[in-house]
Amino acid sequence: MSTAPAPSAAVGPTARLASWAASLRFEDLPEMVVRESKRCLLDHLGLVIGASDEPAVQHALAIVQLLGGEPRASVLGTTVRTSVHHAALVNGIASHVLDYDDTHLPTIIHPTGSPMAAALPIAEWRSLSGRALIAAFAAGFEVECRIGMSVYPAHYDVGWHITGTAGVFGAAVAAAKLLDLDAQRVNWSIGMASSQAAGLREQFGFMTKSLHVGKAAANGILSALLASQGFDSSERSLEAPRGFCNVLSTVQDYDQLTEGLGERWAFPRNGIKPYACGVVTHPGIDGVRLLRNEYGLTAEQVEAIEMKVHPLVLELTGKREPRVGLEGKFSIYHCAAMALIEGAAGPSQFSDEAVTNPEAVALQRKVSAEVDPSLREEQAIITIRLSDGRVLTKRIDAATGTPDNPMSDAGLEAKYRDLVWPFLPAFKQDRLLELVRNVDKLEDIGAIAELLVPLE
Amino acid sequence: MSTAPAPSAAVGPTARLASWAASLRFEDLPEMVVRESKRCLLDHLGLVIGASDEPAVQHALAIVQLLGGEPRASVLGTTVRTSVHHAALVNGIASHVLDYDDTHLPTIIHPTGSPMAAALPIAEWRSLSGRALIAAFAAGFEVECRIGMSVYPAHYDVGWHITGTAGVFGAAVAAAKLLDLDAQRVNWSIGMASSQAAGLREQFGFMTKSLHVGKAAANGILSALLASQGFDSSERSLEAPRGFCNVLSTVQDYDQLTEGLGERWAFPRNGIKPYACGVVTHPGIDGVRLLRNEYGLTAEQVEAIEMKVHPLVLELTGKREPRVGLEGKFSIYHCAAMALIEGAAGPSQFSDEAVTNPEAVALQRKVSAEVDPSLREEQAIITIRLSDGRVLTKRIDAATGTPDNPMSDAGLEAKYRDLVWPFLPAFKQDRLLELVRNVDKLEDIGAIAELLVPLE
Repeated sequence: MSTAPAPSAAVGPTARLASWAASLRFEDLPEMVVRESKRCLLDHLGLVIGASDEPAVQHALAIVQLLGGEPRASVLGTTVRTSVHHAALVNGIASHVLDYDDTHLPTIIHPTGSPMAAALPIAEWRSLSGRALIAAFAAGFEVECRIGMSVYPAHYDVGWHITGTAGVFGAAVAAAKLLDLDAQRVNWSIGMASSQAAGLREQFGFMTKSLHVGKAAANGILSALLASQGFDSSERSLEAPRGFCNVLSTVQDYDQLTEGLGERWAFPRNGIKPYACGVVTHPGIDGVRLLRNEYGLTAEQVEAIEMKVHPLVLELTGKREPRVGLEGKFSIYHCAAMALIEGAAGPSQFSDEAVTNPEAVALQRKVSAEVDPSLREEQAIITIRLSDGRVLTKRIDAATGTPDNPMSDAGLEAKYRDLVWPFLPAFKQDRLLELVRNVDKLEDIGAIAELLVPLE
Repeated sequence: MSTAPAPSAAVGPTARLASWAASLRFEDLPEMVVRESKRCLLDHLGLVIGASDEPAVQHALAIVQLLGGEPRASVLGTTVRTSVHHAALVNGIASHVLDYDDTHLPTIIHPTGSPMAAALPIAEWRSLSGRALIAAFAAGFEVECRIGMSVYPAHYDVGWHITGTAGVFGAAVAAAKLLDLDAQRVNWSIGMASSQAAGLREQFGFMTKSLHVGKAAANGILSALLASQGFDSSERSLEAPRGFCNVLSTVQDYDQLTEGLGERWAFPRNGIKPYACGVVTHPGIDGVRLLRNEYGLTAEQVEAIEMKVHPLVLELTGKREPRVGLEGKFSIYHCAAMALIEGAAGPSQFSDEAVTNPEAVALQRKVSAEVDPSLREEQAIITIRLSDGRVLTKRIDAATGTPDNPMSDAGLEAKYRDLVWPFLPAFKQDRLLELVRNVDKLEDIGAIAELLVPLE
């Protein structure tokens, strides 16, 4: 055990981030940050519960049960209680496995999973308040996105899965705050995170992609716990010549780390995902849904759906005849068909059955998409030709979930209910919604985990 | 749980390494590999036990006890039994914290720590034989060094602590073999290792440096356990454009991964470290020790010690007046003084007391070192001037622990005893030595951990 830490001479960005995070209190948070943090929490809980029967989650759950641990935190939506480390691992995997979690648009980090999956188990273990949870999450989220900004896009382009590499910092900071660490120990937590930052884009399409978020959360907790004991690290782990920014990226923008810290926040550029597929498909889905709802359309009426889209749509989601659910996420044709038939594009619209049923296949074949180089990624123009001769058109300028068109609270609630209904009875859905909306008045965050324990 | 895996079409280096490792049996190992593996095991056990009171180890031990786990494996040299994951974490940290573990010279990986710290807990848990342990360790060691060779030196130069980044592969392969995984699941274990490979050189001088080895070991175990359940990954995680070799290095030599696999081994270029300080000081220490022992020298007789050395010696270890033990390791002057006064350079020669006691300080001041550009790193020329006018000279061409002058079994035994004597009574020292030397006849590796439990 080390004695009281000597004052650090460091005033570099790592030390400044650590010191800001350590001193941040709930009372300092702008109302927007509290509101967005609550929305991130609801989205996270919906995703984790909704993914609880996914094979990747089940495999990880089997391993943490084999390893065992002091039962201090919940694997959400199960009867399993385990160590904070192992709970974070499984909940983190679950938050990402549906490819349906939020996106920080300037870095394409999925930012909520890692810090939230680290924060909830520690808050549960220590019976902390919702205010402590929100302050810790907000600090972690901000540090994570700023570190991402400092190396994006070179870092992502070379092959790093930035959700994992930046996520571990968010988790470490959130965990360190809930353990009440001082600035130096928050800095050591960041230092240990820098030496555990990992995750390769080669894993896209495999379960290991979700492991990146689970490990980021668990590694962040380990960092903060070790730091709490006096386990030390460099205090310049981000900016040093052999630190994170230089070793994992060829380009560094250190100003992003600290400029306007506490005044400018990352939350307004975070988009909650309305559809369980790649963001490039979202403006098209929006357009079809709006026309469907406006005119009460059904599949039988439709002769053709013609889409004008950004070039990336065909590059990334041009799959003509998807045969399994996962391929459906990479088919703009299936996405448009679901938007018209079901008015939705959640996990149930991307099951194996959903992509191959005759009605879906028939409509997929009536969809065409053409690149329009004048359109930005968040834009699309949709034309639907009906058998009665009518031609309906809708232009989308800002897809749902982008900064100019954030998902509404009602939309978020619908997404949440769609995710959790197979696992949570209606009265628990309502109760959880209420707990989250009033989480800043909740004295013990453990109430959330407790509510989610299924009756056996 | 996934069904029986489909045959993989992949024949890339990742798949070939996995398939070789999965099928390797103890009976296939050359006698040299068995002999060197036993020496690595003895060295590892000495280091782990010898470091058991180090602060970094104590901090990590406190955290794994807080987290808890099914008591299936031992934190060596303690009464603590915990999960295989947590035991690997602490034992891995302990193996590296003294900076005294072995060095694979072509990559400067410290190669034994990660695979051995992963293998021992699983072998103990599953009551496996010494032969299974040796085969798993040898496979892990070989894969680790080959992956290191494929990216060294560009990977190291940019700032990666290659002992951590390559070590996780060694740990994953060793663990996967002890779990009896097939080739595809060994490949997934490697894949998950690639997405957990981490560790920055910025941490040199901090406890987090040792964390790299502990995490490599624990992450390797987690990878293999998840793979055993069917948690999948890319099967081209090394060579893919966004795989390990390309993302973590600007230069790749894929031939190193598989050329001569099973015929050419990494062991002959692994050096067991005779002194607890940087390898560049070793030829100088060798020379002073040899003269001391040949002429029975004492400090009072010495007027001057003059060393001709490779340029790196002054660059890395030029500290003129060390004030704490750690600085003594970076002072060729203190190293030479200890070699003369005590004829040794183990952990006790690098305590705070050892570097500042008057006799040591007086002799440090009589040491001078001069660069001789004609000398290679493993060479030095030592001249000692005595007060009676004699001038003694010794040229070292291959320092102890280099391929042309490997550490003798007697030297290794002396190192081991010097490390463990404060923690193990003599009869246990003898018994452990016997167990390790006959480990290929040991039916249950648990006997080693059991012997090391202290009486309370």
